[in-house]
Amino acid sequence: MLGMRLDPDIADFCAAITTTKQGILAERQLSRFRAREELVRSFVCHDANAARAAIAQLPPGPLNGALIGVKDIIATADFPTLYGSGDLEGAGPRVDAWCVAQARRLGGVILGKTVCTEFGFPRPGPTTNPHDARRTPGGSSSGSAAAVAAGFVSFALGSQTAGSTIRPASYCGVTGYKPSFGLLHTEGLQALSMTLDHLGLFASSPRDAWYFASALALPQAEIIAPLRPRRLLVLRLPPELPQADAYPERIAALAASLREGGIEIDTIDLPFGIEDFRSLQKELCYWEAARILLAAGQRPLSPELRSQLRPFLDRGVDEYAAARRRRQSYQAQFDELCGRYDAALMPAATGAAPLSLSDTGDAVMNRFWTALHIPVLSIPLWRSAEGMPLGLQLLGRLGTDRELSAVGQWLFERQHRDTDPTKPRSR
Amino acid sequence: MLGMRLDPDIADFCAAITTTKQGILAERQLSRFRAREELVRSFVCHDANAARAAIAQLPPGPLNGALIGVKDIIATADFPTLYGSGDLEGAGPRVDAWCVAQARRLGGVILGKTVCTEFGFPRPGPTTNPHDARRTPGGSSSGSAAAVAAGFVSFALGSQTAGSTIRPASYCGVTGYKPSFGLLHTEGLQALSMTLDHLGLFASSPRDAWYFASALALPQAEIIAPLRPRRLLVLRLPPELPQADAYPERIAALAASLREGGIEIDTIDLPFGIEDFRSLQKELCYWEAARILLAAGQRPLSPELRSQLRPFLDRGVDEYAAARRRRQSYQAQFDELCGRYDAALMPAATGAAPLSLSDTGDAVMNRFWTALHIPVLSIPLWRSAEGMPLGLQLLGRLGTDRELSAVGQWLFERQHRDTDPTKPRSR
Repeated sequence: MLGMRLDPDIADFCAAITTTKQGILAERQLSRFRAREELVRSFVCHDANAARAAIAQLPPGPLNGALIGVKDIIATADFPTLYGSGDLEGAGPRVDAWCVAQARRLGGVILGKTVCTEFGFPRPGPTTNPHDARRTPGGSSSGSAAAVAAGFVSFALGSQTAGSTIRPASYCGVTGYKPSFGLLHTEGLQALSMTLDHLGLFASSPRDAWYFASALALPQAEIIAPLRPRRLLVLRLPPELPQADAYPERIAALAASLREGGIEIDTIDLPFGIEDFRSLQKELCYWEAARILLAAGQRPLSPELRSQLRPFLDRGVDEYAAARRRRQSYQAQFDELCGRYDAALMPAATGAAPLSLSDTGDAVMNRFWTALHIPVLSIPLWRSAEGMPLGLQLLGRLGTDRELSAVGQWLFERQHRDTDPTKPRSR
Repeated sequence: MLGMRLDPDIADFCAAITTTKQGILAERQLSRFRAREELVRSFVCHDANAARAAIAQLPPGPLNGALIGVKDIIATADFPTLYGSGDLEGAGPRVDAWCVAQARRLGGVILGKTVCTEFGFPRPGPTTNPHDARRTPGGSSSGSAAAVAAGFVSFALGSQTAGSTIRPASYCGVTGYKPSFGLLHTEGLQALSMTLDHLGLFASSPRDAWYFASALALPQAEIIAPLRPRRLLVLRLPPELPQADAYPERIAALAASLREGGIEIDTIDLPFGIEDFRSLQKELCYWEAARILLAAGQRPLSPELRSQLRPFLDRGVDEYAAARRRRQSYQAQFDELCGRYDAALMPAATGAAPLSLSDTGDAVMNRFWTALHIPVLSIPLWRSAEGMPLGLQLLGRLGTDRELSAVGQWLFERQHRDTDPTKPRSR
């Protein structure tokens, strides 16, 4: 495995399946879960005994007993789905979502439902950041990111409609992967937006994330080899976008070091207007979500969320349609822009996880790319001065998910030959 | 009303709501339903008494007691959902889909579930064409199109993943409307493809279709005024595409007559490769549907459908991703092409409804446009030599649904000042 030092406890699943007996990895994870979940609070509900029983009678399959956390806006047959709302009367159907049914069929074992913000909107749940319990894990897939970071599960299912996978992955120091739109079906995920909802995956490495994704969607699970990129594009962000924790310097240093290693690097200013970069996704999302969640009156929303969505119900179609057309033109523009590159690089978040449990942080670095439907990875590459993880965001052209994962794995291994960023620091 | 002669029985709903007392229109429709449903076979299940009871205690709303048929792949609380499979054990959840909940909240009354092909794929149900019971109504939204054409309901909910709304609307002589992707949420519709599934609406006129759509998605239901187009684009099709029943001549004559009336008409050869025009949508649809319907093993599919989907499960991601990228580039290309025009025109189907009940006809005129996410209308404009309806297909730029409907209404009224194509001919 190229000499990468794997933490023996939070092992890369692809490495572990070749070395660890089925069940042993899970027992380690469950014992860590018993010890730390009271602090991390990543699960809404779980059943460790049922997970053990499932492992004991596993179907053969590539997921081979891997423990999995499932975001609580994804339906499951064996656990209730409360959408982060806590309202039992509004619980979802007791049937497995597509991704859950697939994961089980492939030998995955669902440990339970992970905490999320209310219907994916800002109101947070109780989860803390495994690297510092005073800080948010990010959201809306808060518990999914934290559960992987804390070493409770090998994989977690989340979702991303704005920045709900990439941002918490960055804050928690794990790999987050938002696939190309449509590659992983969202059936059974509570819809917020038909044109923005994506499943999101959490794993310890890009290789693991692609292993999980390819198991779900492709004829077989793929263990990708790291791919040294030939050309990368660095997107330089305008001063209106907050970049804390020396993100620009870190990316510049990374670029310089890669260039020294013979990789061609171009740097350009963000070629999209700042207003749309910030707000296009929001405009689409709130217009669509107001209709899905509010119009038909089927969902138990908090008064706060109702009042956030309400104004968008009163909006006509013209602004929305114009935003859709601009999005379509940005999609073509990005595809053209990235044609020469193996990936584009920028910060995965505006900085490290905020020192707050009532604010899941800012998704501004992610929203626009979600709207563009392209594949996106967050790779844990750095630590802030306070020791908090910082992720690099990798963007690829629509449909190039495998190639992006392979490049991501190369960058991940290059950085972690000597350090392991997935291990929570005790404070 | 520009002097349009409305059949007193199959009235334009927007006209009827101003002249007909609530309940009277529905009673006329129900009596027609009693008389002809045995022949048309448009419903899987229905409850006329429940519909009457619902009308008697209507909430106020723009749909004002309109009877509605719901395609049997859309979930409802009061009727089972069998997906055209007839398998009771695989029945869907007893909960209203988004569009159904919205329609009820707005004063619509669900008469029952309409027949569709098995999971939207080719295997047809028993519905016959109201204009000739020996002919198919088209599919997959067979019963929805037939129920509106036969005057049983004012509106019907259907769906389109290939040509399942536009083609049956053309065959049955009603207006079919496939909205811009995402405008009407598909929550509660059995998914076949995340990137192709659309709700589809059936109504007697473009104005009615937009009235229904705007009631569902916008702050209020809109009665659009007909809009005389300034410039139209005629797409001339290559000889590889079958065009029966003098379709090319009809469209040429329409263009000549519009041009005489002072409307600018440009005619160009179809600017997309014939291979992708025929097959791009299929490639995307079967790849995605194989994963949704087959991979997780949750749906009761026929052996035939299983064997059609199976080969696509064994395909990797590369061809699919390449098809997605080509689609993205066609979207930008179409938007550019149509920028100068109020709409593009072509046949809604390859000809009139085939003389068969085992073949729902060819969706080749529709598939590509569905993949492009643009708004599409079929307007009943002509009759074949045998008296069967033939629709004109109108294509607009993404998001221009209202404008397209207004232009469609203008063309509809212009053609029907003297004839009413929505009235079934008795044979």
